[in-house]
Amino acid sequence: MKGNGHHGKTGVSGTSLNGTGGAGKGVHDGKLHVSVNGSLYPAKVKSRRQRWEVKPSEMANNTFNPIRAIVDGMKLTPNKDKPMIALSIGDPTVFGNMPTDGAVLQAMKDAIDSQKYNGYAPSVGYRESRQAVANFYSCPEAPLEAEDVILTSGCSQAIDLAISVLCNPGDNILVPCPGFSLYKTLAVSMGIEVKLYNLLPEKSWEVDLHHMESLIDERTSCLIVTNPSNPCGSVFSKEHLQKILKVAFRHCVPILADEIYTDMVFPGFHCPSMASISSDVPILSCGGLAKCWLVPGWRMGWLLIHDRNDIFGSEIRQGLVKLSQRILGACTIVQGALESILNNTPQSFYNSTISFLKSNSEICFKALSSVPGLNPVMPSGAMYLMVGIDMDHFPDFKNDVDFTEWLVTEQSVFCLPASAFEYPNFFRIVVTVTEEMMVEACGRIREFCQHHYRPSSCNSNDLDQ
Amino acid sequence: MKGNGHHGKTGVSGTSLNGTGGAGKGVHDGKLHVSVNGSLYPAKVKSRRQRWEVKPSEMANNTFNPIRAIVDGMKLTPNKDKPMIALSIGDPTVFGNMPTDGAVLQAMKDAIDSQKYNGYAPSVGYRESRQAVANFYSCPEAPLEAEDVILTSGCSQAIDLAISVLCNPGDNILVPCPGFSLYKTLAVSMGIEVKLYNLLPEKSWEVDLHHMESLIDERTSCLIVTNPSNPCGSVFSKEHLQKILKVAFRHCVPILADEIYTDMVFPGFHCPSMASISSDVPILSCGGLAKCWLVPGWRMGWLLIHDRNDIFGSEIRQGLVKLSQRILGACTIVQGALESILNNTPQSFYNSTISFLKSNSEICFKALSSVPGLNPVMPSGAMYLMVGIDMDHFPDFKNDVDFTEWLVTEQSVFCLPASAFEYPNFFRIVVTVTEEMMVEACGRIREFCQHHYRPSSCNSNDLDQ
Repeated sequence: MKGNGHHGKTGVSGTSLNGTGGAGKGVHDGKLHVSVNGSLYPAKVKSRRQRWEVKPSEMANNTFNPIRAIVDGMKLTPNKDKPMIALSIGDPTVFGNMPTDGAVLQAMKDAIDSQKYNGYAPSVGYRESRQAVANFYSCPEAPLEAEDVILTSGCSQAIDLAISVLCNPGDNILVPCPGFSLYKTLAVSMGIEVKLYNLLPEKSWEVDLHHMESLIDERTSCLIVTNPSNPCGSVFSKEHLQKILKVAFRHCVPILADEIYTDMVFPGFHCPSMASISSDVPILSCGGLAKCWLVPGWRMGWLLIHDRNDIFGSEIRQGLVKLSQRILGACTIVQGALESILNNTPQSFYNSTISFLKSNSEICFKALSSVPGLNPVMPSGAMYLMVGIDMDHFPDFKNDVDFTEWLVTEQSVFCLPASAFEYPNFFRIVVTVTEEMMVEACGRIREFCQHHYRPSSCNSNDLDQ
Repeated sequence: MKGNGHHGKTGVSGTSLNGTGGAGKGVHDGKLHVSVNGSLYPAKVKSRRQRWEVKPSEMANNTFNPIRAIVDGMKLTPNKDKPMIALSIGDPTVFGNMPTDGAVLQAMKDAIDSQKYNGYAPSVGYRESRQAVANFYSCPEAPLEAEDVILTSGCSQAIDLAISVLCNPGDNILVPCPGFSLYKTLAVSMGIEVKLYNLLPEKSWEVDLHHMESLIDERTSCLIVTNPSNPCGSVFSKEHLQKILKVAFRHCVPILADEIYTDMVFPGFHCPSMASISSDVPILSCGGLAKCWLVPGWRMGWLLIHDRNDIFGSEIRQGLVKLSQRILGACTIVQGALESILNNTPQSFYNSTISFLKSNSEICFKALSSVPGLNPVMPSGAMYLMVGIDMDHFPDFKNDVDFTEWLVTEQSVFCLPASAFEYPNFFRIVVTVTEEMMVEACGRIREFCQHHYRPSSCNSNDLDQ
């Protein structure tokens, strides 16, 4: 039946046509009418569909997940003599070694037992839960009230709301490279152009400010800053954040600060929120329970509105409220548990997570620093570590995708090629695996590199002389 | 600082301009360059923003909730001598008289305790949970497999996915009138035109098929059918559904069947799913836990793909998967509990809900049938009852909004004016309140109507003679 033009009867029984159609799109303009049971209706025209032609929308066609596009194209066949170790998955829960805290689970069960959280919440979230988030993140430099908080279905929806309210089709947004792929997925699906500004590995992934500034034009409607960074694990200094803010201020571009990893910072580093050091740039910042509380599946995110100079004003706030009404937000049980989760999770839980991530990062960094042809960059937070590949020394492989594909084939270790972040010749390691797996994986990566490493001809000449 | 054009330094320190700008939008076309630290970047041009102008996007401006627009414009001042009774809220949980079943709560707590459901689920949902939904709704006439199910953040997201995958800006969709306002909210925000087809109160809210068919043109990309209906509480017969399907088939228009109330049907009525009686029209149907399991806040919905003739094909399926990756779907705890919720909720729970809704509907219908000037329509399912107002007999009031506003002022009873559903001269009653409140509310509505009712001049003349 597919594609079969069906030419069944198209007349309406019991009708008398006053016109014979041919009005193009005029069915709706009311010029031709047909009388049905005494009522006048627009007459049918010939322009109606004669066969099935159901095609996905442009938005569906333009929705594109770069990670899936890269990974789905890879031939991942592990070495059957070695158990697979996936260092590719940005989900801290998959190895079972990082459970959330008991207080978090108890808060959820209390919310269920209360039976107070089964009905609809307001589209922006329960007021008490919004107040709890405001209290948790408020600081003297950037005070927050409940009305500055919108609860969302995961940080992803917070990003979606922020881009949706600030940008029209044809506008552009500035996005870090390497960076989290969702920004581009969302923006491109809405007809918004993405301009990538470079991060500098040699400066611990600080922003190339000149490059960033050079990209701004009159259609730039949002600057996205991810701090701490996925995929880099970097944490910007206060001074560097101030420089970014100055660029945004000079060109009057509002900021979306993706701060989902904000409290996942190693001891000795400090990660001030963008809002806390800005008095003149309007900032939407997003976060959620996913990372710090280790429950990414629960889809509990939030968007914080920082607008001390009233530049967003009531219009942007109302726009966000209206957009939040499209599909509503987070599950009410998690909303109901939120105040208790934020207030009752013991500090020792956060400390233990950070201590583990730092230790695993150090193990990985130290192990790979001495591997010929690899250049790991030590992170300061989050749960990732980026490793540069001197491709010149690995002539067996075309690029980072080829390199990581063969790492699976020979060593059963999968790291995400940074081409998935539009940043070739690097790969990303997720440091949430067990220490044992991390040590084993690094050993295998070393073996792989030692096997394939070729000194460059220039260097080998030097050595020969 | 608002609206203050900031003319700070706009030069990039340490740069040497090779061009002086003036290239309009040409910053991004790469024709003018600036050398920074030895790298070439496009030169800055004068077209950058000189002052803050942050405005909400067109999408935000076009996101419009008709219910909010009507209700927020009403002056709702209850009579302080009578406690307020809200018959306006389509949330069965608000009065505390309709708790969900213990098995549902236990399933949630088990999912939490298992600690298996804290991480990310696939964007379309856990396979086991999709299989559970497929099993629950599969029937010989419309079999379902796990891959035909996409789990969503509430039925709202399922509707959003369906419209998003089927429609481009400039297309139109057919929507019942009166009908659930979200269809229009979503479509208009995406630049999709909404054409309202009439339901006929005198035929228990059946579709005016001629009117519906007259609206179809070559840009009609989706026909939405809500059955059972919000706000009407009507349930279509199998024969009527077949007639709707014939229209869709004649014009090759796919159907979105909103069947969120599908099992909320009064004894003696039968509500076959659209898919079960169609072999030739491709159908997306949506549902969720919200209504039958009385937990609308949990945001657990689903979209079912019925495509036995392969008209949607893999393209629409892949489009739905890609769109699901934008912000992911439902909370994983609820997903993890889903199989148990569907399989372990006792039949007595569903029966008790339906029995209560039917009883309250009958109380309301009987009470208002004898009120002069009101014409209630008895529902067959869902949790709503529509009441027509003979406005000619209520000259004190301009319209249904005015009528319901004064009903609050004098009697502290709030019913939603059906103008919120684009259907003037009716109001909607939600029948989930306690029986005691329903009786009291109907008594007050009677008093209100008796006080304001005026026999029409024609009738009074008849009586005088």
